[in-house]
Amino acid sequence: MENSILQKLVKGDAGYVLEDVPHLTDYIPDLPTYPNPLRFNPAYSVVKQYFVNVDDTVAQKIVVHKDSPRGTHFRRAGPRQSVVYFESSEVHACIVTCGGLCPGLNTVIREIVCGLYNMYGVSKILGIDGGYRGFYSKNTISLTPKSVNDIHKRGGTILGTSRGGHDTSKIVDSIQDRGINQVYIIGGDGTQKGAAVIYEEIRRRGLKVAVAGIPKTIDNDIPVIDRSFGFDTAVEEAQRAINAAHVEAGSIENGIGFVKLMGRYSGFIAMHSTLASRDVDCCLIPESPFFLEGKGGLYEFIEKRLKENGHMVIVMAEGAGQDLLSESLQSQEDASGNKLLKDCGLWLSQKIKEHFSGPHKFCINLKYIDPTYMIRAIPGNASDNVYCTLLAQSAVHGAMAGYTGFTVGPVNGRHAYIPFNRINESQRQVVITDRMWARLLSSTNQPSFLSSKEVTEFENQEQSPVQLLDGEIFVDNKF
Amino acid sequence: MENSILQKLVKGDAGYVLEDVPHLTDYIPDLPTYPNPLRFNPAYSVVKQYFVNVDDTVAQKIVVHKDSPRGTHFRRAGPRQSVVYFESSEVHACIVTCGGLCPGLNTVIREIVCGLYNMYGVSKILGIDGGYRGFYSKNTISLTPKSVNDIHKRGGTILGTSRGGHDTSKIVDSIQDRGINQVYIIGGDGTQKGAAVIYEEIRRRGLKVAVAGIPKTIDNDIPVIDRSFGFDTAVEEAQRAINAAHVEAGSIENGIGFVKLMGRYSGFIAMHSTLASRDVDCCLIPESPFFLEGKGGLYEFIEKRLKENGHMVIVMAEGAGQDLLSESLQSQEDASGNKLLKDCGLWLSQKIKEHFSGPHKFCINLKYIDPTYMIRAIPGNASDNVYCTLLAQSAVHGAMAGYTGFTVGPVNGRHAYIPFNRINESQRQVVITDRMWARLLSSTNQPSFLSSKEVTEFENQEQSPVQLLDGEIFVDNKF
Amino acid sequence: MENSILQKLVKGDAGYVLEDVPHLTDYIPDLPTYPNPLRFNPAYSVVKQYFVNVDDTVAQKIVVHKDSPRGTHFRRAGPRQSVVYFESSEVHACIVTCGGLCPGLNTVIREIVCGLYNMYGVSKILGIDGGYRGFYSKNTISLTPKSVNDIHKRGGTILGTSRGGHDTSKIVDSIQDRGINQVYIIGGDGTQKGAAVIYEEIRRRGLKVAVAGIPKTIDNDIPVIDRSFGFDTAVEEAQRAINAAHVEAGSIENGIGFVKLMGRYSGFIAMHSTLASRDVDCCLIPESPFFLEGKGGLYEFIEKRLKENGHMVIVMAEGAGQDLLSESLQSQEDASGNKLLKDCGLWLSQKIKEHFSGPHKFCINLKYIDPTYMIRAIPGNASDNVYCTLLAQSAVHGAMAGYTGFTVGPVNGRHAYIPFNRINESQRQVVITDRMWARLLSSTNQPSFLSSKEVTEFENQEQSPVQLLDGEIFVDNKF
Amino acid sequence: MENSILQKLVKGDAGYVLEDVPHLTDYIPDLPTYPNPLRFNPAYSVVKQYFVNVDDTVAQKIVVHKDSPRGTHFRRAGPRQSVVYFESSEVHACIVTCGGLCPGLNTVIREIVCGLYNMYGVSKILGIDGGYRGFYSKNTISLTPKSVNDIHKRGGTILGTSRGGHDTSKIVDSIQDRGINQVYIIGGDGTQKGAAVIYEEIRRRGLKVAVAGIPKTIDNDIPVIDRSFGFDTAVEEAQRAINAAHVEAGSIENGIGFVKLMGRYSGFIAMHSTLASRDVDCCLIPESPFFLEGKGGLYEFIEKRLKENGHMVIVMAEGAGQDLLSESLQSQEDASGNKLLKDCGLWLSQKIKEHFSGPHKFCINLKYIDPTYMIRAIPGNASDNVYCTLLAQSAVHGAMAGYTGFTVGPVNGRHAYIPFNRINESQRQVVITDRMWARLLSSTNQPSFLSSKEVTEFENQEQSPVQLLDGEIFVDNKF
Repeated sequence: MENSILQKLVKGDAGYVLEDVPHLTDYIPDLPTYPNPLRFNPAYSVVKQYFVNVDDTVAQKIVVHKDSPRGTHFRRAGPRQSVVYFESSEVHACIVTCGGLCPGLNTVIREIVCGLYNMYGVSKILGIDGGYRGFYSKNTISLTPKSVNDIHKRGGTILGTSRGGHDTSKIVDSIQDRGINQVYIIGGDGTQKGAAVIYEEIRRRGLKVAVAGIPKTIDNDIPVIDRSFGFDTAVEEAQRAINAAHVEAGSIENGIGFVKLMGRYSGFIAMHSTLASRDVDCCLIPESPFFLEGKGGLYEFIEKRLKENGHMVIVMAEGAGQDLLSESLQSQEDASGNKLLKDCGLWLSQKIKEHFSGPHKFCINLKYIDPTYMIRAIPGNASDNVYCTLLAQSAVHGAMAGYTGFTVGPVNGRHAYIPFNRINESQRQVVITDRMWARLLSSTNQPSFLSSKEVTEFENQEQSPVQLLDGEIFVDNKF
Repeated sequence: MENSILQKLVKGDAGYVLEDVPHLTDYIPDLPTYPNPLRFNPAYSVVKQYFVNVDDTVAQKIVVHKDSPRGTHFRRAGPRQSVVYFESSEVHACIVTCGGLCPGLNTVIREIVCGLYNMYGVSKILGIDGGYRGFYSKNTISLTPKSVNDIHKRGGTILGTSRGGHDTSKIVDSIQDRGINQVYIIGGDGTQKGAAVIYEEIRRRGLKVAVAGIPKTIDNDIPVIDRSFGFDTAVEEAQRAINAAHVEAGSIENGIGFVKLMGRYSGFIAMHSTLASRDVDCCLIPESPFFLEGKGGLYEFIEKRLKENGHMVIVMAEGAGQDLLSESLQSQEDASGNKLLKDCGLWLSQKIKEHFSGPHKFCINLKYIDPTYMIRAIPGNASDNVYCTLLAQSAVHGAMAGYTGFTVGPVNGRHAYIPFNRINESQRQVVITDRMWARLLSSTNQPSFLSSKEVTEFENQEQSPVQLLDGEIFVDNKF
Repeated sequence: MENSILQKLVKGDAGYVLEDVPHLTDYIPDLPTYPNPLRFNPAYSVVKQYFVNVDDTVAQKIVVHKDSPRGTHFRRAGPRQSVVYFESSEVHACIVTCGGLCPGLNTVIREIVCGLYNMYGVSKILGIDGGYRGFYSKNTISLTPKSVNDIHKRGGTILGTSRGGHDTSKIVDSIQDRGINQVYIIGGDGTQKGAAVIYEEIRRRGLKVAVAGIPKTIDNDIPVIDRSFGFDTAVEEAQRAINAAHVEAGSIENGIGFVKLMGRYSGFIAMHSTLASRDVDCCLIPESPFFLEGKGGLYEFIEKRLKENGHMVIVMAEGAGQDLLSESLQSQEDASGNKLLKDCGLWLSQKIKEHFSGPHKFCINLKYIDPTYMIRAIPGNASDNVYCTLLAQSAVHGAMAGYTGFTVGPVNGRHAYIPFNRINESQRQVVITDRMWARLLSSTNQPSFLSSKEVTEFENQEQSPVQLLDGEIFVDNKF
Repeated sequence: MENSILQKLVKGDAGYVLEDVPHLTDYIPDLPTYPNPLRFNPAYSVVKQYFVNVDDTVAQKIVVHKDSPRGTHFRRAGPRQSVVYFESSEVHACIVTCGGLCPGLNTVIREIVCGLYNMYGVSKILGIDGGYRGFYSKNTISLTPKSVNDIHKRGGTILGTSRGGHDTSKIVDSIQDRGINQVYIIGGDGTQKGAAVIYEEIRRRGLKVAVAGIPKTIDNDIPVIDRSFGFDTAVEEAQRAINAAHVEAGSIENGIGFVKLMGRYSGFIAMHSTLASRDVDCCLIPESPFFLEGKGGLYEFIEKRLKENGHMVIVMAEGAGQDLLSESLQSQEDASGNKLLKDCGLWLSQKIKEHFSGPHKFCINLKYIDPTYMIRAIPGNASDNVYCTLLAQSAVHGAMAGYTGFTVGPVNGRHAYIPFNRINESQRQVVITDRMWARLLSSTNQPSFLSSKEVTEFENQEQSPVQLLDGEIFVDNKF
């Protein structure tokens, strides 16, 4: 997949750059257009400004100096007043959900269906059952506003989901065979990469099929966009587990409440949950290396905090300390319990127990809480529900306007269309040299667990302005 | 109060404007400075980028065209690396909360105290008891990190609050008498206007006292900033009332569930609660006029919806239809029940009951729910808690850096210092010609209740770019 | 309706009395019997003791002395091992819900349907739409285990409900016309009286139709049975309102949080909510008279408590002080706001405000919270859900065993069949000379508001052993 | 410890037996008495019936036939009108909490303190820190109504807790040294056995010290009493985990949601949670043996249910299948992961995964949820809060009245004093030949997993009337 195909760069004055998304007319020349049915919708009769100016773009860089260049922009999401590239009766849409559960999935499904139906009069909408592989191996579900009316009150996804393994050419065959011309793909990292490949294949075949991605990751590790749906709900729900850990720890001598939260590669849930709770003494995330033994290590800190306060709460993102776990497993042969132990949270809590039951003879009481599935499976809260509505409607407006190969998401609070490659090229991570992590350190009063060599390395990394920007955008933008 | 005193405008290239905030050095010439103690704080030792560049500003305009002017900017909030204008041991801060309750109040109090103490080593912090009048008529409360440790888990404000009536000169006398040099004022509209006057008086007297406002309004009707704290929690909690109304309505023939929500002058809570719920058939807000009788009126719509669905849910912001209520009351003399009736929700629900019990003989069952106090009194949710932390820390950084006469809040997701006059000059309202309201109309499928004359009027209003911008900023920026 | 028809008394040794319920064979002599299909149900294959001995009875009197008489007993509920009086294929059941909403209604409906289907293989089950009048004026709904599968997670009643006005002979006509032979009636006081009349008419016509009542009253004011379903959930949910009142009151000078709870004739919800919360300063219930003005009155107590604590919380059952309200309204002529004022909570809160804004000049801040509909409309909690299951199954077992004209409910923890007249003859009330009310007085430290004359009257009333017993049963039996 | 010391049997007519509790006067002859201060308490001035008749006893057997013997009775709990055996100023009480956390612990502590203070004017109350061993190794906490005012809103125990290991003679030494004369012991099985021994030693030494036990077990496995505090809250909270498991399972092909709940020796929480939820396909408890492989085994059932429905939910009490785990572990040597694997839930879920990843090649997706600590650590709900109040007050009344060596708890809904030996002699278990378990089997439609030989064994066990009674009492009495 060449970037030249996916990237459409437009330049302007004072360093202005627009990273545009593909359009069906990029490869299908004389596509007919139709008046936008929204113009005749009574709900919008008084609202001329509802429509987005075709030239609107959203700035990625927002903290500026008097003379700084204007930087990257994205195309603003929303309905186009002039024309659409699909006739309502012609549209045959499909929706697929992939990967792990996330609060709000059903809301996105609901709002794509209701958006297409209420705004554009589209009624042929298919749910693909069980993730990507559902395109060729499973039954589909016909979706109507009535059938999806209450699903936003339920967790999970009514379409079912699965992970991984998809066969691009079979999927595009299936799209062609069924006469589908709008594909809405809800999923994370890997799923959006798959969507990019599907778009490429569709473009290669010259099909009039719009491909729209809605990024889904409870971990909030998608770059460019402000936050991912479900994140807010997850942080809220994580408070229960932290509260329980706090109560358990505080009711027993040298009690340690140990909570494992989601976050394989990025610690946003752990960080925000810690900041929201204020009952946490130590937050471990994948981005911030730590070590166990010796001076400045985790064990020392635990012992110190227990001696001061009598109890403590540790919050750990599931990906934290994976390097320690890998080392440890290599040195062990044939351990029958290994499969279980690959869970880094269980492993680390076990290590802590072993350490303190050893010659040190400092008796601790560790309670391990893993609320992962209880968090993932709840429905979206009010804030995420409204957010999911906007995501779904943005995707629908984009596809109807003929854009394709794009994902949707808010950039500095404005919904925009973002090319797949920008979403897929990297993963957002907590920037530990940044202010939000400093706030966390200040709040927990935990050591940084960094050697001076590591500090230097991190400082050098920071020079990268992109990294900084991403980190910054998130830090504040959430709010 | 002249604007010239409050406004500090700086211009740059390409239409760049900075609306700056006052600084103590504006009127106290040779103020000594001190190294920022944060630089020696272990939590920040690895985080050089924690500090904000003094030239950082935040753009208010973010949806732009290739060649549009850059527009208004605000000074970025955050710690300054170089110097502060208060020595830690010299600081004597006070905190006051005014006006109605709002989820998150205690979190803001807690985080000002902990921020001053943990970041800057300040320990003389006073809570003013019972709002503005507490400055001169009541006892004060000494605040320590320990005494505020758990207060964010409780609703309300531990400082107590009151409305209105304050005597500027007595307050400033009290500030002077007690030797207070940092004043943190948490409150709404009127409170921030009061803060502006207090700042003016302090400046007039030439005192080295920093005045920082933290805007509080559950209704989210403060301009410029993205959203106000507590709003998210309020919308979430309002779902309970709407759910109950939906169940009540659906269990009885021609059932109407009628929910009154907060919003005297702006309908954000009603609008967002409606969008998040999707069980609402009609949302009435102060910004969108409506009428009761005749064709296109509310009664007609109610009858129509009941005949179609058998039940309906109405959500009303408390300020909606105030014009109708005023008319009605004028035509009535000396009604003994008047005091009660001034509650527009009760009045309207009564009017609906009367209408349908009249000659029309269309029997309805209306259940009236007013969850106002149950919403206001809960603690902030996780999202609001993190947000309140950032607000409090921004205020603390600003005061320590010598800024004064400012409020804090996120602009397009970046925390900024905003001059009082920008916050106080107007009230943010739902722009009913804007996209968010269109989304609502599309979701409820309710009529616009507007005559064509009113439509024209609204269209003309829209020309005002400020209005549009404000509306837009909110619409998307929340997300 | 003569008691002789409804009452079946059986006497035994040592003062043993069984108040039995009617049986179809009482008026239809040679009714055929069938083997109980439960005996062949695999789920019960190992459980011989599942079946209730036909002679089992449940004692109402349980606190006894060594030689006290044994007293009243009721027939134990449950499946009879030997025979049933309906063939599965012959059964045509109907379910109707009447009166106000109550948590758990849908669970009872669900479990009657699932109980009939799973235990007895019955599949012809009809839901009557909209209460009693649905028998002759509305459509019915066919109920299957699948259609009711998830309804217990929703509040309200899927069958709809209505109040009052039913025409017995039309109802029985409708029952006869439709060939219904099992009638399950879920409703309160008035509904159960209606059920008694329907049973009488069915008996008069000599129909083989079993009539089973499931008592429903969120107020818990049904005599004989331990508690009514939904009560637990209501008390739990009421805590939210009391918490909010407590926070509101505590955040303002002389703040009064005033919560109106359900309870027109009995104050159980108010009493239990007060005991569970411990934040309440004054609990007003219909059973305990009080007065406003003068020494020992409510105003005096309010002023005293505010002066001591600075704030207070008042919880009032809706029926409390109705006598005061009636007096007040009589002295007023034609007040236009009267309809509103009939709400005693609004009226009393208004009176308190007026009193303290009067010449006394003691400024108070009263916040009025009426969570009634928000409490009624939630689904049953886990405890009520299990309880509703037992109620429904008891009713099904009873009807299949040929009993009729009965209600079901736990007596001292054992489910029993109780004749209609015992349920209908009186209303359970809080016995204010009893221990539970004393516990409340001790917890709130409120005065008794009783004159010495009233005390004497109450003491004399107490002599009635039935009253005492009822009170006692409830007091402890809940637990 | 001879039973003769602990057991006080009184016989009456018609098979009446009273199992009485010890009294201080049993071994201290001429103990002075004092008028009960409650008689002069204004809260009780109108409530003569507040006082319990000294002859009141509570019947354990309540389902009776016309001529059945009256059976066992217990002394009724409550205040005695005549006299108490402690002067208020003389009382020096202490409270200790032992064993695992349970919702409501803090409420019991609060109500003992408030009960002693408000009802009897006692103000010397000591909290023992950290369980039994706190008597001799730790600091104590002075408890006042003010210091315990809000603790019922928090989970855990403010006194701290620990398990096991106590030294009776050191404890009694400590009691003697500190001059304590009322000991309130809150804890489970082992703790109550410890309390019995402490009572014996106190009696041996002839001390005027009343020992009162408040039984605590979240598992509800204490015999005689109707239910234990915290159980209701636990079942309610367990619904969250089951809901999550249901959502996770339903969103993926062959999804299994596996929830491990508390219940080492008895499955009440699992059984009630399953009945309340109705989303569970299989409930495994310690009382009901099961096997994995082959016809009629668990694997077969799982495969069958997945093929029918596509997903399923399994709820398992932690003690279920311990025999299978033990077997499995014995056959394994030196397994390094053993410590983890002793968790039977993890082990079984691992076994299921292994089985279906084996040659059968039936791909499943199992999600394991262990909410134990999240359930234990929440505060009591309203129902448990009221219940805890009654327990605490009963204990206080008992001690003041001179009873000792007793536990408190409701028997058929009436609070009673029960001798230690009756509580300690056995553990309550789910009687799987009883109706409640049959209801569960009917609701989940799971097989009984019993061989015909086991069925016969269980049927023979049932002959024991005590077993039956216990089972029955619980089944219905909760409700």
